[in-house]
Amino acid sequence: MTEAEQALITEAGRQLGPKGVIADPQEIAPWVSDWRGRVHGASPAILAPASTEEVVTIVKLAAAHRVPLVPQGGNTGMAAGATPAADGSQVLLSLRRMNRIRSVSAENRLAVAEAGVVLATLHDAANEVGMRFPLTLGARGSCTIGGLTSTNAGGTQVLKFGTMRALVAGVEAVLPDGSVHDGLTGLKKDNRGYSLDQLLIGAEGTLGVVTAVALRLVPAVAARAVAWAGVDSPLRALDLLRFLDARTTAVEGFELVPQDSLDLVLRHVPGTRAPLLGEHAWHVLVEATTPDSSHDITAELEQLLAAALQEGIIGDAVLASSEAQAEAFWKIRDTISEAERAEGQTLAHDISVAVGDMPRFLTEGAKTVEARFPGTRAAGFGHLGDGNVHFHVRAPTGTDGPSWYEGEGHVISAFVHDLVVAAGGSISAEHGIGQLKRDELARLSSPARMMALRAIKRAFDSRELMNPGKLVTLAPDGATP
Amino acid sequence: MTEAEQALITEAGRQLGPKGVIADPQEIAPWVSDWRGRVHGASPAILAPASTEEVVTIVKLAAAHRVPLVPQGGNTGMAAGATPAADGSQVLLSLRRMNRIRSVSAENRLAVAEAGVVLATLHDAANEVGMRFPLTLGARGSCTIGGLTSTNAGGTQVLKFGTMRALVAGVEAVLPDGSVHDGLTGLKKDNRGYSLDQLLIGAEGTLGVVTAVALRLVPAVAARAVAWAGVDSPLRALDLLRFLDARTTAVEGFELVPQDSLDLVLRHVPGTRAPLLGEHAWHVLVEATTPDSSHDITAELEQLLAAALQEGIIGDAVLASSEAQAEAFWKIRDTISEAERAEGQTLAHDISVAVGDMPRFLTEGAKTVEARFPGTRAAGFGHLGDGNVHFHVRAPTGTDGPSWYEGEGHVISAFVHDLVVAAGGSISAEHGIGQLKRDELARLSSPARMMALRAIKRAFDSRELMNPGKLVTLAPDGATP
Repeated sequence: MTEAEQALITEAGRQLGPKGVIADPQEIAPWVSDWRGRVHGASPAILAPASTEEVVTIVKLAAAHRVPLVPQGGNTGMAAGATPAADGSQVLLSLRRMNRIRSVSAENRLAVAEAGVVLATLHDAANEVGMRFPLTLGARGSCTIGGLTSTNAGGTQVLKFGTMRALVAGVEAVLPDGSVHDGLTGLKKDNRGYSLDQLLIGAEGTLGVVTAVALRLVPAVAARAVAWAGVDSPLRALDLLRFLDARTTAVEGFELVPQDSLDLVLRHVPGTRAPLLGEHAWHVLVEATTPDSSHDITAELEQLLAAALQEGIIGDAVLASSEAQAEAFWKIRDTISEAERAEGQTLAHDISVAVGDMPRFLTEGAKTVEARFPGTRAAGFGHLGDGNVHFHVRAPTGTDGPSWYEGEGHVISAFVHDLVVAAGGSISAEHGIGQLKRDELARLSSPARMMALRAIKRAFDSRELMNPGKLVTLAPDGATP
Repeated sequence: MTEAEQALITEAGRQLGPKGVIADPQEIAPWVSDWRGRVHGASPAILAPASTEEVVTIVKLAAAHRVPLVPQGGNTGMAAGATPAADGSQVLLSLRRMNRIRSVSAENRLAVAEAGVVLATLHDAANEVGMRFPLTLGARGSCTIGGLTSTNAGGTQVLKFGTMRALVAGVEAVLPDGSVHDGLTGLKKDNRGYSLDQLLIGAEGTLGVVTAVALRLVPAVAARAVAWAGVDSPLRALDLLRFLDARTTAVEGFELVPQDSLDLVLRHVPGTRAPLLGEHAWHVLVEATTPDSSHDITAELEQLLAAALQEGIIGDAVLASSEAQAEAFWKIRDTISEAERAEGQTLAHDISVAVGDMPRFLTEGAKTVEARFPGTRAAGFGHLGDGNVHFHVRAPTGTDGPSWYEGEGHVISAFVHDLVVAAGGSISAEHGIGQLKRDELARLSSPARMMALRAIKRAFDSRELMNPGKLVTLAPDGATP
């Protein structure tokens, strides 16, 4: 521990009390590695403020002592954006004690949640007033509102409701100088200059610490219908999406699953079974919902899928006949990554292209990768309707993990990213940049984008004390403002 | 004309050709005063690029010669954000020649329009492919996509579709160093760092020049129903909105009109008549639409209003029986400002508070202003469902215009803004800051907000060459980076 860190931690303990500083290495250990266990950091302590004022105290102390802070919520990020440096030179700032839901209003369709509120807790609070916070994802039991906001998280219901960027009505954040931006007013229209709220969404803690968020609520779901359809190709899957889109506004989940991924799940995840009897090259999980309890959403989806079958868009389909079966369909989708890990080494790429370009990217991209790296298996699955898939490349059978990731893995990922850029896409659709994609972002972005990102970072945090090493670093000539 | 301006204009003419520079004072004159005729500027010429490359040329020349540029679209702004300084030290950069719709796709639900495309032209282009760009406002025949984006414009359909911030899928802009930010990819998910698109929306040309915009389209309207309802109070109007909101998703326009405003329209605007026979203290214009031609939207709205009448929420209501009558209802709403001008001097305030707080603000705010400034009449009208009204204060009868605006007018506006801030609201809901509200923004914003706005401005445009004097100016100590 450096002297500066010691001073920060001691003073923080004095001002925040014993609960405000976690110094026990055993308690620290689970939080210094990323969720996937790929990146390992160190922190001399975890600072754990319980209020916005305490965050202000910490940010000011860190500035005074020039100690970098790494904000962290549930530590479920996919890009190691909340993992401190390995040399212990950065101090974790956990927002988990800030877990109050300050307000939830059905009338205003707004909730204000502190950064440490767990997503599932917010879901419950909204439900209790007959409303719903529509964003959801696999880590809902651990991920926090602050992290979701700071990474502009997506998930499975983006098709209808958008990412966090569309669902955040305002942000409260402590800026690097210790001042507080209060964007929690819940105004629907506010044109007082550049949108600081939008700037902080997806900033990954590099411009300040998000302490609370105003969130838009929508009417609760009265009923849902979940179906599984088999299709010949990603293009047919997109045809199905457009067929449904033209006829209903009820579809909010539309997930693409290749047969290969389904096979892996059936092999490795106990209790799973194929929803359809026949084989299909590709599959689609469709979820439709209604807030209107008098509307028979199952009948509507069934009718639409029957029509799609008749038009030859899909090869077969089945409606979940119970909530348990609906959950079983979703379980297949949600355990693909887990099944891949059980099978062997897998490189994950969270990428997006224009929705209309995705079918070709999936088909040709996979072929191109497999041809270039013999023995690998490439496939994309996920949010077809958002133009966003998780494009995974599995190592050849028998490959040794760590060395493959560090060696050929890097080459393959760079190759995939090049394909994405050539297709006009993004190398980070919903997982963010963190530290894992930072260098790729710099390599593959236009000079205009990198200039602008650095200029913004420098404008807010020229000393790089807010989550340094994540998203963007200042060029050497810019390290001193 | 300064030597630097002369050099800029000459070189621009050489590189852009004769169409690229307008030097005739007669042609310049209409563009150097703001739309309301309140602010008068001067410009030695108008630079008129026809392509993004030509904008790059101009921005680089302006940077080389240190000549400030003032981007302008249709010059319909309400805050003099596109009016150059009176001393002729700034050069107008007109985007009107960049009027190409680069693409419009029903399948992708996207259009890409250059900055100079007039809103009504985009409406037509979307209609032609069976789609719709839902944002609209009174100036639709003159205002441009670049200006709408740069001011984060709102209008009358925000309730359902949001402001430009929600409808812009991406921005192409020339940054102050002449580099081009290309955000036109049309990606639905893209987490490559801070959102430059969102930063440029509402930046009023102070961070760069918006040259083209990707815009979200929605299905075309198959039918609309327009109704006029009389209510006792703004609170009852809000009750009506919530009553409708709980029962339908079809409402997209919900405009509040006080009896006083209706009276003025009937007095000053030829061919107008009161929609209802009886007197009501307040009125609401409701528009509901459907993209489904088999749905009887008129019957739905009629039924809902009948139920609201029965529940005592409204005092009376009438459905427009024809498109002509629907247009007549809208004409009342759209000519309130014109009628006020005919009546005498009026101070306009484009303000917002939380939706639930608006009824009280309207009632008590008007009383407070009238008590404090005897003889004035204060009333708010407009977008109740967005928490945004145009809060107008009319001068006492017989007041002399210019001196009143400059004298007591300033005091009254500051008083209104103080009320808004005390209510947790915004002094600019949809019109932006421009030069008219710049000092009020600085006076009434938190240190955190002003610090952040200045830091962003300095990061992009430390020499203040992009629309200087608008939105935010750099503090003296920040003028040199």
